[in-house]
Amino acid sequence: MSAGDEHESKDTGRTEAFSDGVFAIAITLLILDVKVPLGATSERALLHGLAEEWKAYVAYTMSFSLILVMWVNHHRIFTLLRKIDQPFLFWNGLLLMVVSIVPFPTALVADYFDTPAARTAAAVYAGHGLLIALAFQGVWQHARRNRHLFARGTEAVVERLNAQYRFGPLMYLIAFALAFVSAEASIGLCLLFAIYFSFMGFTGQSPQKHR
Amino acid sequence: MSAGDEHESKDTGRTEAFSDGVFAIAITLLILDVKVPLGATSERALLHGLAEEWKAYVAYTMSFSLILVMWVNHHRIFTLLRKIDQPFLFWNGLLLMVVSIVPFPTALVADYFDTPAARTAAAVYAGHGLLIALAFQGVWQHARRNRHLFARGTEAVVERLNAQYRFGPLMYLIAFALAFVSAEASIGLCLLFAIYFSFMGFTGQSPQKHR
Amino acid sequence: MSAGDEHESKDTGRTEAFSDGVFAIAITLLILDVKVPLGATSERALLHGLAEEWKAYVAYTMSFSLILVMWVNHHRIFTLLRKIDQPFLFWNGLLLMVVSIVPFPTALVADYFDTPAARTAAAVYAGHGLLIALAFQGVWQHARRNRHLFARGTEAVVERLNAQYRFGPLMYLIAFALAFVSAEASIGLCLLFAIYFSFMGFTGQSPQKHR
Amino acid sequence: MSAGDEHESKDTGRTEAFSDGVFAIAITLLILDVKVPLGATSERALLHGLAEEWKAYVAYTMSFSLILVMWVNHHRIFTLLRKIDQPFLFWNGLLLMVVSIVPFPTALVADYFDTPAARTAAAVYAGHGLLIALAFQGVWQHARRNRHLFARGTEAVVERLNAQYRFGPLMYLIAFALAFVSAEASIGLCLLFAIYFSFMGFTGQSPQKHR
Repeated sequence: MSAGDEHESKDTGRTEAFSDGVFAIAITLLILDVKVPLGATSERALLHGLAEEWKAYVAYTMSFSLILVMWVNHHRIFTLLRKIDQPFLFWNGLLLMVVSIVPFPTALVADYFDTPAARTAAAVYAGHGLLIALAFQGVWQHARRNRHLFARGTEAVVERLNAQYRFGPLMYLIAFALAFVSAEASIGLCLLFAIYFSFMGFTGQSPQKHR
Repeated sequence: MSAGDEHESKDTGRTEAFSDGVFAIAITLLILDVKVPLGATSERALLHGLAEEWKAYVAYTMSFSLILVMWVNHHRIFTLLRKIDQPFLFWNGLLLMVVSIVPFPTALVADYFDTPAARTAAAVYAGHGLLIALAFQGVWQHARRNRHLFARGTEAVVERLNAQYRFGPLMYLIAFALAFVSAEASIGLCLLFAIYFSFMGFTGQSPQKHR
Repeated sequence: MSAGDEHESKDTGRTEAFSDGVFAIAITLLILDVKVPLGATSERALLHGLAEEWKAYVAYTMSFSLILVMWVNHHRIFTLLRKIDQPFLFWNGLLLMVVSIVPFPTALVADYFDTPAARTAAAVYAGHGLLIALAFQGVWQHARRNRHLFARGTEAVVERLNAQYRFGPLMYLIAFALAFVSAEASIGLCLLFAIYFSFMGFTGQSPQKHR
Repeated sequence: MSAGDEHESKDTGRTEAFSDGVFAIAITLLILDVKVPLGATSERALLHGLAEEWKAYVAYTMSFSLILVMWVNHHRIFTLLRKIDQPFLFWNGLLLMVVSIVPFPTALVADYFDTPAARTAAAVYAGHGLLIALAFQGVWQHARRNRHLFARGTEAVVERLNAQYRFGPLMYLIAFALAFVSAEASIGLCLLFAIYFSFMGFTGQSPQKHR
């Protein structure tokens, strides 16, 4: 390993550490928007208050899964990378920004899902999911167009992952469009994506197998 | 060390770093639910206001100890691991989710422990403790069923730890059942578990001794 | 590598890790000040409420970019460093303090930008930006005056970066002065800086090229 | 380096990472208690509102410095350590707990320093400072009584640091006692300690010089 390689490796490491920090904080802050019911004066009233918050629990689970899936895939890209360059850092910064915004649309859905303003809340959530998918594509396609950023022997994995990743923006575009028709359908689809990819991301073929 | 091993080691490292981030944030956010008494206009009134919050202090201590114990044991598993696979990541993600939820039942107990709704609050807290214990079993038993994930020579430690870990779900199940009878008994038991295992976890036999 | 070098390297590493943590948390906490509109009872009312918050979105984007730029440059300094000394730690601590204060002036601008108190809010924001630029100069100039802190062969990069960095305090001084005339001009300039340097920082010549 | 050493080193590393996370989060959460003045309708009113918050700024600076000093010293201990054991982890957990509580007494001082309840707030702050100093002594004296935890050749540094550290609890004990006489004197002393040790900690003799 030459001195140059070592510096590049140090670079990748710190960007991963900073990114991990942002992912970990964003995912843990989500709980701050699940509020304890106030002023219940009996067991029944507290149970009722807790049950009323089902929207907050659904929104929490959906966004926790979404950020976890993004982290797993971010992590996966970095296991393939040999080094990073400045435009990669820019795209990565943009991705971190949209990921750290997630608590906002999550709170919006939790607050407005069963109100007459539900479709607006759903459109913001799905639209934000689309932004995340696009920022992820920005990171990924930049690396893909600059093959020297990837470690040698990763071509097959990269192409296989690319086939999976390209559906991300399309899926959230559909969820966004659906929001104008039905908040339930749109959020249902977002929830399905998050949970499906939590399982798939974890049970699908690992890139390690190709090394 | 082959290139493959290095990649696996990098993998374990980043999962540890992300997990550490979530544990560290969840444990530090707990203090946000200990509120400063408002509007006290004399030394006596402020002292009284601070004393009134004893439930928040107990809930804080209980949950800080709980998360710390979970971290110590999570950390211990990782010292035994040689590598991780995709299902491990899934179980680990589930564990991180239930750990990062801890501030919610903590605030519930702090707010409702001395109200007529205390048993509901205690049942939620102990029930959530049970979920944490089950998610931890998920991580642990997956690794145990896939011995190649552990480093060589760790069999004895793994079996000894397994004997300890299997009581976790049972203990929280008892605390959960007790909540329907007495909130004090249920929370008292949860507090006892957290503090007992803080001490035991730290003073018990270390896995290192077996290497 | 001698034992001494290793200890110094460990030192740099942990200071980077702690700094990364503070940067990552400060940047992720910014979203807590973007509040969900309350009590909207129709799609139109929620859209209107969301549109009303444009100041919060601008302030968020501006401060996210600012902290990201500071992180990129902090990171860049550390890629050049061979070791750190105690005064460096002091200046670094001061930089972390002003960076972690960012959510406060951000919330001030979000709350007061379209009120009669806008210029005060802008002066605080730009004035705080000046403090950050000065703290960064403190870190940088300390290292520059103590060349043995830098790795060998970095002289040219250090001087080139120095030529860029010296404009930072001047720019925020101008934005601060402008605040007494026009809040829009001052904040507009701060926004321009943050976004311009986000792009420049990422697309400009990398120090790695000089190794 | 034998396999055993490597495992121990990994152990120290992850405890440092987790501790750094807790320190970094606690120090960054402090800003959440510096609130933007509400409802100012003129430049003068906002300036007045901001000036009114001087107690919050003082409390912020005092606690930021305190946590930073604790981090620097925690970091310093770890540069001397060769390995850690289970009781060390317990003491370290206790130290992390009292450090992560800091936002609470800080908010108490910010809210009550210029009220008739000031002495109670000061006593809580200084008393909590005493707890931190005692927890730090717990970590330190455990390591000192178990010399094999320290790297070889560190005896002189350990004894010199010990001479410094033993004053910590005494100083906060004095500040605590003073709180019953004068809140100003007590908080003034706490502020002095935090700022003095920020400078001393950074400009004093570094342990590295002794290696």
